Amino acid sequence: MLALGLSTACAAQSTPAPEREAARATPVDLVVFGDYVVTQDDAQLVIHDGAVAVDKGGIVAVGPAREIRAKYRAATTLDGGDRVVLPGLVNGHTHAAMSLFRGVADDIELMEWLTKYMFPLEVRFTDAEFVRIGTELACWEMIRGGTTTFLDMYYFPESVAKAVEGCGLRALVAPTVIDQKSPDATDAADSLRKAEEFVRRWKGRNNRIIPMLSAHALYTVKPDRLRQIVGRARELGVPMGIHLAESKFEVEHSQKNFGATPVTVLESIGFFSGGTTIGAHVIYPTPAEMEILAKRRVGAIHNPTSNMKISSGIAPVTAMLKAGVRVGLGTDGPATNNDLDMWEEMRLAAFLAKVATMDPEVLPAPTALHMATRGGAEAIGLGEEIGALMVGRRADLIQVSLDDPQLKPLYDVISHLVYVADASHVVNVVVDGKLVMRDRKVLTLDTARVSAEAEAIAAKIRAAVKEN
Amino acid sequence: MLALGLSTACAAQSTPAPEREAARATPVDLVVFGDYVVTQDDAQLVIHDGAVAVDKGGIVAVGPAREIRAKYRAATTLDGGDRVVLPGLVNGHTHAAMSLFRGVADDIELMEWLTKYMFPLEVRFTDAEFVRIGTELACWEMIRGGTTTFLDMYYFPESVAKAVEGCGLRALVAPTVIDQKSPDATDAADSLRKAEEFVRRWKGRNNRIIPMLSAHALYTVKPDRLRQIVGRARELGVPMGIHLAESKFEVEHSQKNFGATPVTVLESIGFFSGGTTIGAHVIYPTPAEMEILAKRRVGAIHNPTSNMKISSGIAPVTAMLKAGVRVGLGTDGPATNNDLDMWEEMRLAAFLAKVATMDPEVLPAPTALHMATRGGAEAIGLGEEIGALMVGRRADLIQVSLDDPQLKPLYDVISHLVYVADASHVVNVVVDGKLVMRDRKVLTLDTARVSAEAEAIAAKIRAAVKEN
Repeated sequence: MLALGLSTACAAQSTPAPEREAARATPVDLVVFGDYVVTQDDAQLVIHDGAVAVDKGGIVAVGPAREIRAKYRAATTLDGGDRVVLPGLVNGHTHAAMSLFRGVADDIELMEWLTKYMFPLEVRFTDAEFVRIGTELACWEMIRGGTTTFLDMYYFPESVAKAVEGCGLRALVAPTVIDQKSPDATDAADSLRKAEEFVRRWKGRNNRIIPMLSAHALYTVKPDRLRQIVGRARELGVPMGIHLAESKFEVEHSQKNFGATPVTVLESIGFFSGGTTIGAHVIYPTPAEMEILAKRRVGAIHNPTSNMKISSGIAPVTAMLKAGVRVGLGTDGPATNNDLDMWEEMRLAAFLAKVATMDPEVLPAPTALHMATRGGAEAIGLGEEIGALMVGRRADLIQVSLDDPQLKPLYDVISHLVYVADASHVVNVVVDGKLVMRDRKVLTLDTARVSAEAEAIAAKIRAAVKEN
Repeated sequence: MLALGLSTACAAQSTPAPEREAARATPVDLVVFGDYVVTQDDAQLVIHDGAVAVDKGGIVAVGPAREIRAKYRAATTLDGGDRVVLPGLVNGHTHAAMSLFRGVADDIELMEWLTKYMFPLEVRFTDAEFVRIGTELACWEMIRGGTTTFLDMYYFPESVAKAVEGCGLRALVAPTVIDQKSPDATDAADSLRKAEEFVRRWKGRNNRIIPMLSAHALYTVKPDRLRQIVGRARELGVPMGIHLAESKFEVEHSQKNFGATPVTVLESIGFFSGGTTIGAHVIYPTPAEMEILAKRRVGAIHNPTSNMKISSGIAPVTAMLKAGVRVGLGTDGPATNNDLDMWEEMRLAAFLAKVATMDPEVLPAPTALHMATRGGAEAIGLGEEIGALMVGRRADLIQVSLDDPQLKPLYDVISHLVYVADASHVVNVVVDGKLVMRDRKVLTLDTARVSAEAEAIAAKIRAAVKEN
């Protein structure tokens, strides 16, 4: 394949709109132009000199700039010179509020990290206010980096939902049920009861916020409880999440306690049937288990940075994709990453797959971009709503600047997006048709307040770590 | 180790300078302040609220801000609020001018990439003008990303040296001798003759530009020729570079043709004795060969991004460091990377070592930073001149902004530099005491001209690739 062989529609070849059409142009809320519009539609069309028209939060047209200009009169216009328009990035797995713990402790054994740092710090600091501030800080970072949707698994989901509501992002919000005392519950029963209340409060309340349920993992939640949680998720009609086949420890624990590996055990208790299920990490599925994940349409969220940094292992992404598993990308929490940069996840997904298989052809740039956009949306159950610039979808899109020496010259826009671009190149961010960042200024958060509140908590955490 | 347990000197504990001292303050060219000054000195001192005083291109003082303010009167001052000062990054291996080929072809087999794309494109396009423009584009990107020194292996070294001279960076410039016709020579003898002329012209001419010699690799240059090249390098008193143990192919070729693996073969012909030698990649050294590299003080440049992206393999960095090898970091050329971002190399060096060994404790953040600064300087033979903020060294330093949501809150400045910071956080860049970027504006290049010239060549390359 030639590097320049992308399917490209050229505006110059489209019919110029007659003058009279301009007069009867349809009014819309927003038109976003781009030197390149990367649609992620079924044909993977990249429109040179294109535009996207947005009205009432949805995409009403995608096409050559001249056509869109002729047909639509926009209340707001974003110019497209030296810019790429693409779907907003989808972060399929994070613990956003852990932004307040980023860099507290690195480069140590996972168990030491958990028992000496995270668990004691969470017991002491993680409350509703902490989660609100930590999530707002994370949303600020995600907006600046072009992430428009994230799936959050943490505690105090009310705080998460309110932060998301305020900052304008889209999110799946999952309270985490675990068979032990947690920051927001005395035990799993209490946690599940509160999680259900949260789901009932938020279901259908705001189309950007999708409440869901989640179980921490097979090694921390007993099968009976897992059955109960997934049953409640199906009754409530919400997605279900879990950390899945994440570590060798989890696999060994599963084999020892249940006589089978994690995906098989969960399949046997009906965990994957009857609704959207999202597994995070999925580093150790067997080939037979990949078939189960594909058949059950389970979303498998690959977190390459976190998996590398804490030495969890290398997920068999190439094999999963070949088996038809819906693979998305995630950052994991910023305490293990240590950021929420989906550009880095795209790049690392490609790099890691290539070196792990010793085959430079696997996981090419278009696949990495798919996993961070449309594929990621499919993995979290939003495959019809977001992830592509197609008429009828919600308008979650970003504009990326090409005006940087790193991105010069340009031969293949997809290559540049995956192998070079980073958070700093994102200029404008639109979620559900509304601008949440314009010219790199976040419009929906009082960032000075968030910064000050985050620093106030960090000062206490610093003191606690010093005492330790 | 506590995350906050870095050796930290606190300005508040230093003796306040009496009023009278201000009057007799010593005039210097530049003082750079920082909330944190990461010295990379022998004690790995991080000075909170510190400063670096620079005069005549060299560092004359490093210490608490109040002391430096009292002792020195600067012609130019760079404020330090929410900023970190650290040594400029050292890119130990690149082919800078290949910036003009970035993204032309990705995700394909190395031999196809070379024979269908790079070799024909180089034959057609790589001339003195191409190399000047490509190197200037690369320097623009490197300056913006905080790289202050790079080692370049390419053709038309005169063009490279002139580009470096103009843009203010520091570089080791290596013409590449190879046993075949190359873009700038009819054969290896012609290439070596021209390379020697280049070295004679540039040796001692500009203290920022160090001419050197290089051989492409053991599989492309015959042992007799290698002996001849290294002999000339020693006579001329310049460093010597080579691609070393980069691929399984190279190892097999070496065993088949010389009955031993590459490092052993080169050692047997005296390649590593008598002067500075720098090997790029070094993915497949045996344990015994690591001992040779350590004993001969060979610089081994690790290029994690390129090694992953083109599936060359995983260099045994942890084992090399343990064996005492001088390991630096490099980006490789932007045609395989596809950028020149040393922040990404630091991060990936750590991530890749951790997942390769399944040990999260190996290659911790301070080691990654060392490899990109002082360790990298040692690897390329500049261990006494640059790489650390110490009195008497050349003033190659950068200021990085912490004013970004990704970098909030801050518990450990080294963790943030390695695991979160990227090129976009670099605000000011000083090389040899001179500002080459201020407030993200590159001062030493006409970037509009470079951009236009690069685009003019890219247009021709696009047409050639389309014809193909």
